[in-house]
Amino acid sequence: MTRHTLRSAPSSPSPQESGSPPATATGPVIGRALRILGAFSAQRPHLSLSELARRSGLPVSTVHRMLGDLLVWGALERDAQGRYRIGLRLWEVASLAPRSQGLRERALPYLEDLSSLVRENVQLAVRDASEVVFIERIAPSCAVPTLTRVGGRLGITTTAAGLVLLAHAPAAVQEEALARTIPRHTPFTLTDSGRLRAVLAQARTCGYAVSDRQLSTDTLSVAAPVTTDDGEVTAAVSAVVRHGSTSVGALADLVRSCGRAISRALDTPDL
Amino acid sequence: MTRHTLRSAPSSPSPQESGSPPATATGPVIGRALRILGAFSAQRPHLSLSELARRSGLPVSTVHRMLGDLLVWGALERDAQGRYRIGLRLWEVASLAPRSQGLRERALPYLEDLSSLVRENVQLAVRDASEVVFIERIAPSCAVPTLTRVGGRLGITTTAAGLVLLAHAPAAVQEEALARTIPRHTPFTLTDSGRLRAVLAQARTCGYAVSDRQLSTDTLSVAAPVTTDDGEVTAAVSAVVRHGSTSVGALADLVRSCGRAISRALDTPDL
Repeated sequence: MTRHTLRSAPSSPSPQESGSPPATATGPVIGRALRILGAFSAQRPHLSLSELARRSGLPVSTVHRMLGDLLVWGALERDAQGRYRIGLRLWEVASLAPRSQGLRERALPYLEDLSSLVRENVQLAVRDASEVVFIERIAPSCAVPTLTRVGGRLGITTTAAGLVLLAHAPAAVQEEALARTIPRHTPFTLTDSGRLRAVLAQARTCGYAVSDRQLSTDTLSVAAPVTTDDGEVTAAVSAVVRHGSTSVGALADLVRSCGRAISRALDTPDL
Repeated sequence: MTRHTLRSAPSSPSPQESGSPPATATGPVIGRALRILGAFSAQRPHLSLSELARRSGLPVSTVHRMLGDLLVWGALERDAQGRYRIGLRLWEVASLAPRSQGLRERALPYLEDLSSLVRENVQLAVRDASEVVFIERIAPSCAVPTLTRVGGRLGITTTAAGLVLLAHAPAAVQEEALARTIPRHTPFTLTDSGRLRAVLAQARTCGYAVSDRQLSTDTLSVAAPVTTDDGEVTAAVSAVVRHGSTSVGALADLVRSCGRAISRALDTPDL
């Protein structure tokens, strides 16, 4: 869920900046350093040197050579047992990412308001290719337990937020997501591409999507889009409640209203 | 507030892992890549190639060479205008940092409960050397505006959370913080090291610290420690309210209670 394959290549640079795309001429060093960072996961946030080598697929000697620079800058830290972990400094720099923390900062007051109304989990998610990444989850202590983790990924067709994002994604992205084998978490998980297409169409028509016990048998989630000035769906806001506890229609009204309020708060075009 | 000097060197590795500290033998490449990441700030989350070069102190050609690797992995992304920004992938990896997101995840329900009681800003902060880094801020839309940003730094002696963290820091860290020239944000900002020493002593005695209009004339903050099993102060929880709106004593009771609840929730030793 938290380890990824290589992202697709970036779009070419603007002609104002450079006549050619940035070359990857720095050799393998940066790629190796990034592989070391990518070796950590939610399940394994603390790793020894040998674990780092194994999980990054790099020789121990190579990893050892690179750790010095990563430690000095604060990309990594060591814990009391001498194991390595992602450092506070890297987290600080990464918290400047406009697509996660920047969006989160502007959305927060509205998420809090929604959370205080529904007294349940409220989440914010963005799409990365054909996957959904959760960038915020707030919840009072009485909320129903969820599988969502901030910075984590869940199935784009099994979560309401994912369904909203996929419903407004380019056709090629939808095809990619629907062509995958979808893990069946519960008897209610939708795995049939025909039914999922209907759900996506309905999400576009109604302005919200519902995941009814698709991820766990005791939860229901409802999501609505967050749009930019030019109508692009840039994020999804969702509420995850205990199944059967709330009217879906009433919840959908609250979530859609929250999505619109966040959309209005996003007045710069390049989030 | 968000750009930093180089961190102090890390502690040497455990003998089990290696007989010598990791060498910084990967040459300047990783250091340069990290300087590029460090060029972004809260005020400048989107940068052009030439801005990146200027702010990192590296030649344009060097920056250009490194951007390819950083883009492909997702450490950086390009916005609609072709400018560079911190990427979602880097944020995902960084969200695994135990000292920020890990701590935040466990503290969240208690922060939400406190926020719903005080209907104001609730924050979680950790100490990095002699500075305070805010790792969470939650606030309903009615909350008093604050200068705090998640991933941002504020003066350790001017915030209640900072005072709590400093009060329990090693003596050398306290001396370093008190030896600095403290910017005067308001007429109430404490800048005298003698008075600050008394405030720190009081924070240790009372179990909480107060910043009374030190950062802005309309806010008061109260903070309490979060401690690990072995009594180490690992974080501080604070509430920031409008000055004059609440009894400090009553607020301190709520914040201390929240700090203790989070401390109890932290049952692994290496956060």
